[in-house]
Amino acid sequence: MNRNELIHQIRNKKSYLCIGLDTDISKLPAHILRTEDPVFEFNKQIIDATQDLCVSYKLNTAFYEAYGVTGWQSLEKTLHYIPKDCFTIADAKRGDIGNTSTQYARAFFETMSFDSITVAPYMGKDSVKPFLEFENKWAIVLGLTSNEGAFDFQTLSVGSEKLFETVLKKVSEWGTENNLMFVIGATKAEQLTQIRKIIPDHFLLVPGVGTQGGSLADVSKHGMNADVGLLVNVSRQVIYAGKEKDFAQKAREEALKLQKEMATYL
Amino acid sequence: MNRNELIHQIRNKKSYLCIGLDTDISKLPAHILRTEDPVFEFNKQIIDATQDLCVSYKLNTAFYEAYGVTGWQSLEKTLHYIPKDCFTIADAKRGDIGNTSTQYARAFFETMSFDSITVAPYMGKDSVKPFLEFENKWAIVLGLTSNEGAFDFQTLSVGSEKLFETVLKKVSEWGTENNLMFVIGATKAEQLTQIRKIIPDHFLLVPGVGTQGGSLADVSKHGMNADVGLLVNVSRQVIYAGKEKDFAQKAREEALKLQKEMATYL
Repeated sequence: MNRNELIHQIRNKKSYLCIGLDTDISKLPAHILRTEDPVFEFNKQIIDATQDLCVSYKLNTAFYEAYGVTGWQSLEKTLHYIPKDCFTIADAKRGDIGNTSTQYARAFFETMSFDSITVAPYMGKDSVKPFLEFENKWAIVLGLTSNEGAFDFQTLSVGSEKLFETVLKKVSEWGTENNLMFVIGATKAEQLTQIRKIIPDHFLLVPGVGTQGGSLADVSKHGMNADVGLLVNVSRQVIYAGKEKDFAQKAREEALKLQKEMATYL
Repeated sequence: MNRNELIHQIRNKKSYLCIGLDTDISKLPAHILRTEDPVFEFNKQIIDATQDLCVSYKLNTAFYEAYGVTGWQSLEKTLHYIPKDCFTIADAKRGDIGNTSTQYARAFFETMSFDSITVAPYMGKDSVKPFLEFENKWAIVLGLTSNEGAFDFQTLSVGSEKLFETVLKKVSEWGTENNLMFVIGATKAEQLTQIRKIIPDHFLLVPGVGTQGGSLADVSKHGMNADVGLLVNVSRQVIYAGKEKDFAQKAREEALKLQKEMATYL
């Protein structure tokens, strides 16, 4: 999916919600566990209940890898089930030397057909560039993450700025606003004004709203640009809103609350 | 495998060689392509031909993920085939917020039974700690990598030191020399003397010897400690030494050259 199509979906649905399918078998309703592929069955019902309210689904690969080959089958089935008008994100945090990153890009963009993948920046340019060489595909590079560990390295002073600011500046030279986004955690929303001075046009994938404590209002106020420029991810607060047979309906109710709030900011 | 067992294997085999199974279907001999699972068949023959010469095998997950579910099946079959006296490394460069890193740790240490996994440090303590909480399992955290992109961020000045030095110092406080190693690229061997001042006791996983240009002599001279403390990885130079029916024999010859050189340094 290209940038114009993504913006069109956001305007059309009045939503910049991304739903994170961090599907953990130990948290699924009992009746789902009795189906043949519980992870896929859960995802399918969540997608059916929420696809008109969100513009994107993010699949956290860790939760699928944890079940080995079976997990990868659930991942691929889920990806195929997501409607084509939703932007798909492999939240995989990959990144390695050039020839290896090329293999990861092939895995997620060709073998599977994700629109985008999250990428770790520590190994530098040749680890990121291979993800930028596929038409209408996106690298979403870690900038300032939503977790406590973000303060260990990302906020260290490098000359007159923070490491994550250097990362944003350098990485933004390697791609364009048409193939590159950044992860900026909602728990650091107060930094978004400064971040928008460095990368005014890029889309930001914003985790951390909901269970992790970030505020949708703050993120929207400080992070939005003329093309919206935000994909706000919510995972646990939506997908585990209910634990019974009506879990998908409960998920829809949570997603609807978020979508309605987003509509007021657009 | 614990530290004492690893050191015993190194002394016993007179080798600190790790062979990287970066198995790329496009580089396999023609007769292997006609087997049912060419990636596994290739790995099996390489392992049969080299297991007495190396102490470790490193599986680069990207090369398996590139083939989707089939690739993960080849990965799991290969892992099961590796003899128990060899230390196994999932070269996966994972790392995410705490609850997600826990899922990755489960994937590689429990669902599969790797001894270790490579981990990216950018997201900080809560992204690394979950990998340190499994008995006789190891996190191998990126310090200074072997690629050109290492100079983009890893060597930036943070106060009076380089970012990778800060990473080595901080991360080494999160684990011990019994559950934590670091990746230090052979292409930066001249830095090993300084690095050994920061982390004298930890094992180092050293990629970059061979195709990438690093020198085994330099790495051994500057990097070895009283317990050897090195696993030197060679991938392409060994596994693609031959392209015909005798590829495994050619791989053995390359591995033997490396092992014999290592024996002189021990």
